[in-house]
Amino acid sequence: MAPTPDTEHPNKAFGWAGRDTSGLLSPFNFSRRKTGEKDVAFKIQYSGICHSDLHMLKNDWGNTTYPIVPGHEIAGVVTEVGSKVQKFKVGDKVGVGCLVGSCGSCQSCADDLENYCPKLILTYSAMYKDGTITYGGYSDLMVADEHFVVGIPDGLPLDAAAPLLCAGITVYSPLRYFALDKPGLHVGVVGLGGLGHVAVKFIKAFGAKVTVISTSPNKKEEAIQHLGADSFLISRDQDQMHAAKGTLDGIIDTVSAVHPLVPLLGLLKYHGKLIMVGLPEKPLELPAFALLSGRKLIGGSVMGGMKETQEMLDFAAKHGVKPDIEVIPMDYVNTAMERLQKADVKYRFVIDIGNTLKASKLLNI
Amino acid sequence: MAPTPDTEHPNKAFGWAGRDTSGLLSPFNFSRRKTGEKDVAFKIQYSGICHSDLHMLKNDWGNTTYPIVPGHEIAGVVTEVGSKVQKFKVGDKVGVGCLVGSCGSCQSCADDLENYCPKLILTYSAMYKDGTITYGGYSDLMVADEHFVVGIPDGLPLDAAAPLLCAGITVYSPLRYFALDKPGLHVGVVGLGGLGHVAVKFIKAFGAKVTVISTSPNKKEEAIQHLGADSFLISRDQDQMHAAKGTLDGIIDTVSAVHPLVPLLGLLKYHGKLIMVGLPEKPLELPAFALLSGRKLIGGSVMGGMKETQEMLDFAAKHGVKPDIEVIPMDYVNTAMERLQKADVKYRFVIDIGNTLKASKLLNI
Repeated sequence: MAPTPDTEHPNKAFGWAGRDTSGLLSPFNFSRRKTGEKDVAFKIQYSGICHSDLHMLKNDWGNTTYPIVPGHEIAGVVTEVGSKVQKFKVGDKVGVGCLVGSCGSCQSCADDLENYCPKLILTYSAMYKDGTITYGGYSDLMVADEHFVVGIPDGLPLDAAAPLLCAGITVYSPLRYFALDKPGLHVGVVGLGGLGHVAVKFIKAFGAKVTVISTSPNKKEEAIQHLGADSFLISRDQDQMHAAKGTLDGIIDTVSAVHPLVPLLGLLKYHGKLIMVGLPEKPLELPAFALLSGRKLIGGSVMGGMKETQEMLDFAAKHGVKPDIEVIPMDYVNTAMERLQKADVKYRFVIDIGNTLKASKLLNI
Repeated sequence: MAPTPDTEHPNKAFGWAGRDTSGLLSPFNFSRRKTGEKDVAFKIQYSGICHSDLHMLKNDWGNTTYPIVPGHEIAGVVTEVGSKVQKFKVGDKVGVGCLVGSCGSCQSCADDLENYCPKLILTYSAMYKDGTITYGGYSDLMVADEHFVVGIPDGLPLDAAAPLLCAGITVYSPLRYFALDKPGLHVGVVGLGGLGHVAVKFIKAFGAKVTVISTSPNKKEEAIQHLGADSFLISRDQDQMHAAKGTLDGIIDTVSAVHPLVPLLGLLKYHGKLIMVGLPEKPLELPAFALLSGRKLIGGSVMGGMKETQEMLDFAAKHGVKPDIEVIPMDYVNTAMERLQKADVKYRFVIDIGNTLKASKLLNI
């Protein structure tokens, strides 16, 4: 008989999985590999809910393997380490983000950019090196190569640290790479969701000025009063957008819906940079003139490398950058997904795995 | 009576002008301003024909003022200098490119990037500071502020120098700014026309490897044997394009027709740069994934600043970078425009103003 998810590995694990494109999650028994000599095993305490979890649950990108246990914003406490593990010991607070593997021998890996390795292995619904499918953080136990485990610094609560492992690094990495991390710069953030609200906090921590650009006028007070943005633009208000022309050094565009680029490029100063971190399903329209006339550029960035992820966590701890989260019990996950679909969350759901998954297990299995 | 082009200034000038959207050029009497204290006057010897001359003649961009004397690749010999001119003296070989003025007080001007000054004044069909219309290089005499005049170094023939003043700087400037000017890099050039062929020569002079990407298989021999490109890709050949995936550090895209970006982005290595210097009339399609998946960027660049234009000429003289030109008499200009429309030129027409405009004048006026 072919191995099944619950028998293929020796360590029993339990989580919630999606079984089909309905996206509905329900309890799921599976297994994790034996802790290898370079592996770290940890008890998962918190798992953030990323918008891509929803896309993957519904197979929106066509690459989902069912059953799928989502979750790539995973924080917990080490329970076991392999004999050759150097960075971690039992009891350490650790996290795993979007990646659990890469080839280790390509230029991207050599450059600490495992996120651009052509053979990168995603944390869930991907095939691991041993031929089994990876399962994510909506579960009780994680086993990962220490190279893909980061330490969560003291001063950063585990629940708030979780979303930094995807949302955080996704905006931090391009802010650094495209040099939008300098005091005195003026940076725009398009879209005030999971990614956008963390971008605001990082940019402020870098000492730069932030303008939030949103379609929703009702986010203005929140952006300025609560998140500390310096100003707010309603992207559909042509007068406001016109008055702000040529004022931004760069923009982090977190929007995953199809949207016009020209008004955003218009907000940039000469030589400004529009960086996309969202993934609209259809191509956007790019009139060359909007780039040429000011030597502007459009860049893209996805996730971050392991070294930079650790650097980001250390920076966040030092500067008090913490995502705004709504902590939910495991049982609430399907409702949370419905609310996430409607962008009804400020700004990231985090599942309290440690305190609520066990209860579900007893109830359901 | 309102001043007319031939009476508004004291210095008689003669050239060829377009009068309407037919694009047809014919002899034209006009005038140039008195040589001001910071002005350089020079006898035009050669004027290159840029594809934008054709667009402007036909008012393709909707901003043409008729009559229009095109030409912004202008080389000649100084005949008079104003009392405060410091850089030039009578007899010097000089040139004027796309610009004859800018505000002088904005950040772009302070950064030696007059080409991005919001008040830049183009060499023809634009309004100069005195309220008169600027006329370009298809004429016998030029008067320009010395700030917008460059010296043509010994060793660079005047006829070959002319196209460097637009085609040359248009590709040189982004190669420098986007750091595609390093030995060991591998840079693609899309489109082998006036701009593309000079880009190949500059990239080779920087010590980098060049791949030409073209829709025309019959340009392969020319690109490799004659221009010194290292390899050649037919952009419509999917097998060739697939085999070359991920091999280029950057691409200079000189094509002004609408064309797909995704195959070009696919040729880039991770973190590669696609730089557009052409101006397709309609927006191009940009799927975000093609940027995000490799942290790639699309940039644009237009012309260059005066300091960099001088640097480019000095570099070209030192490294023997010379455009391939077809020198034509003034009378041939309308035929040349027809051929240019069909891309039937290797690779730039240059009008021999010095030896042939005078003859036309005697015949036609």
